Amino acid sequence: MAGVSPTPLLKDELDIVIPTIRNLDFLEMWRPFFQPYHLIIVQDGDPSKTIKVPEGFDYELYNRNDINRILGPKASCISFKDSACRCFGYMVSKKKYIYTIDDDCFVAKDPSGKDINALEQHIKNILSPATPYFFNTLYDPYRDGADFVRGYPFSLREGVPTAVSHGLWLNIPDYDAPTQLVKPRERNTRYVDAVMTIPKGTLFPMCGMNLAFNRELIGPAMYFGLMGDGQPIGRYDDMWAGWCTKVICDHLGLGIKTGLPYIWHSKASNPFVNLKKEYKGIYWQEEIIPFFQAVSLPKECTTVQQCYTELAKQVKAKLANVDPYFTKLADAMVTWIEAWDELNPSGEAPAKTSNVKAK
Amino acid sequence: MAGVSPTPLLKDELDIVIPTIRNLDFLEMWRPFFQPYHLIIVQDGDPSKTIKVPEGFDYELYNRNDINRILGPKASCISFKDSACRCFGYMVSKKKYIYTIDDDCFVAKDPSGKDINALEQHIKNILSPATPYFFNTLYDPYRDGADFVRGYPFSLREGVPTAVSHGLWLNIPDYDAPTQLVKPRERNTRYVDAVMTIPKGTLFPMCGMNLAFNRELIGPAMYFGLMGDGQPIGRYDDMWAGWCTKVICDHLGLGIKTGLPYIWHSKASNPFVNLKKEYKGIYWQEEIIPFFQAVSLPKECTTVQQCYTELAKQVKAKLANVDPYFTKLADAMVTWIEAWDELNPSGEAPAKTSNVKAK
Repeated sequence: MAGVSPTPLLKDELDIVIPTIRNLDFLEMWRPFFQPYHLIIVQDGDPSKTIKVPEGFDYELYNRNDINRILGPKASCISFKDSACRCFGYMVSKKKYIYTIDDDCFVAKDPSGKDINALEQHIKNILSPATPYFFNTLYDPYRDGADFVRGYPFSLREGVPTAVSHGLWLNIPDYDAPTQLVKPRERNTRYVDAVMTIPKGTLFPMCGMNLAFNRELIGPAMYFGLMGDGQPIGRYDDMWAGWCTKVICDHLGLGIKTGLPYIWHSKASNPFVNLKKEYKGIYWQEEIIPFFQAVSLPKECTTVQQCYTELAKQVKAKLANVDPYFTKLADAMVTWIEAWDELNPSGEAPAKTSNVKAK
Repeated sequence: MAGVSPTPLLKDELDIVIPTIRNLDFLEMWRPFFQPYHLIIVQDGDPSKTIKVPEGFDYELYNRNDINRILGPKASCISFKDSACRCFGYMVSKKKYIYTIDDDCFVAKDPSGKDINALEQHIKNILSPATPYFFNTLYDPYRDGADFVRGYPFSLREGVPTAVSHGLWLNIPDYDAPTQLVKPRERNTRYVDAVMTIPKGTLFPMCGMNLAFNRELIGPAMYFGLMGDGQPIGRYDDMWAGWCTKVICDHLGLGIKTGLPYIWHSKASNPFVNLKKEYKGIYWQEEIIPFFQAVSLPKECTTVQQCYTELAKQVKAKLANVDPYFTKLADAMVTWIEAWDELNPSGEAPAKTSNVKAK
């Protein structure tokens, strides 16, 4: 059709970040979609183990030894034995965009039976504006065949830059351990053909399984916290990043979209193990969420780093009484920003190729 | 399946309100779904004209003479020569729930080709809770096959009562005149299989074409304003009701859902005529929306009537400088509440059948 331009591939502007503890056979299925891109693989757990990557992929791989070597004492802010370690990949990337995916996520099919190019949909989401200030009942007004409905203020129709595209999952839904236990057989079979902006002032549970973002706009807020080895909590890494990211996007006038694309989430994690990781989070979130709902960032905070540092201060002041863990987390948030700035000196435009190479 | 109960029909608790200027042949198509219900038909325009209603429907019909007779001088708050007159039907109903539909809306088909029982879906929406305080990425958590996702606070999983169910439209989308003019051939063919709650603090463009609400919870806020004959504006009746309803629902802790069901919207109204009706609204809404975004209702307002009366006061104080129309509208809002209370004496439980009968 005339006038319809193909989605830009952004192949020199996007890195795919994958945290893993196993051979990356799952990439075979993604080959038609991922092969043009550079991969950043963050190896979790035992660094002496060799992770096999299918042939033909362009990648750099970091294990714990690499992280320790590159960050020195600041490596303490990167989680170990938890997929939260993936955020190290965001930090060492030099690209404008990041797509991150779990290694148990496969290519899903749309209702017509066609393989879904998840990355292409994320790129569409992230290259078109978001509309956080007013709800559009026909969903993303920038999609083909859609628009703003009657009554949508014209002054808001330009939208704001989209910082994050949050994709969903067919088959195994992203449930917490209690819900997994109660509904062990529930599968997500509903393909909802929609993308929408999460309104300003509303928090959401951001899942790290199938997520894209604009690193230039929001990268330093995408810290996945302290989880896993030596920490009292797990499975809240992406949630933490989501809460921080949302309040900072709201403050800076950036948008977050959710909905398409779907990936096929192949297997449910063990609900008993998950319960052990989650139970403190389930309890704590009842205080964390009101905290984030009430967070106010001062006008002086005009960069993501400034916002994030301010947020760390407020976490320390207001959540330390929930558990001493939050003091440690607040310190790690500051360390994360220091490490980010060290690896990403300000003023430097993102390079076309990474200058940090491991292996 | 065991444990799955059929959707209650609510046939003695729901009225269908239809504003019209023509014979109601469109009801033939709705017969399998609407025939069990009582209809309230509000005849717009020339009261001497006879509106034909297909046989077998149980209805009451009000024309302008009836409205004048029943409301006396307070009839001034009901619009003439505009489908905004439908809200008279809300006022005279004695049922708990209202469904309102336009007479150019037909039965749509779902992607499997099955006729959509729009009313049944509205009833499902309105009988299950809403979740305005936190976004659920898998949409309505109360639908079959869905739930709250990981990271959704457990304290919020009971939700709040749903006051409004806003349905959508296949075929002709609800666009404003400028968009109609720019995209005369755009049709909505995307069936989005989702219902969701519009978050607290977010306004939306409420369309009156395919709308259900709980009259007991929110009825007095569903005033469709002064439009049409003798007024400087049209096509903002449902928008006005939507803005008022949303801020009052937010204040009272009630939810509004949007999404399914779809109806088939058969014909686009004339964009040139629409432009004439809308142009002041398009301009004014740039000031009206910031007003509604900033509205704060005092704690003392604990009923819809109190909230609405307070809102009328604020409209007069803050929008009168936009145009003298808003002073008139604010007065009409007060009249509407007076008329509502007259026809619906407080403390009286909704009767099973209407006690106001015309024709």
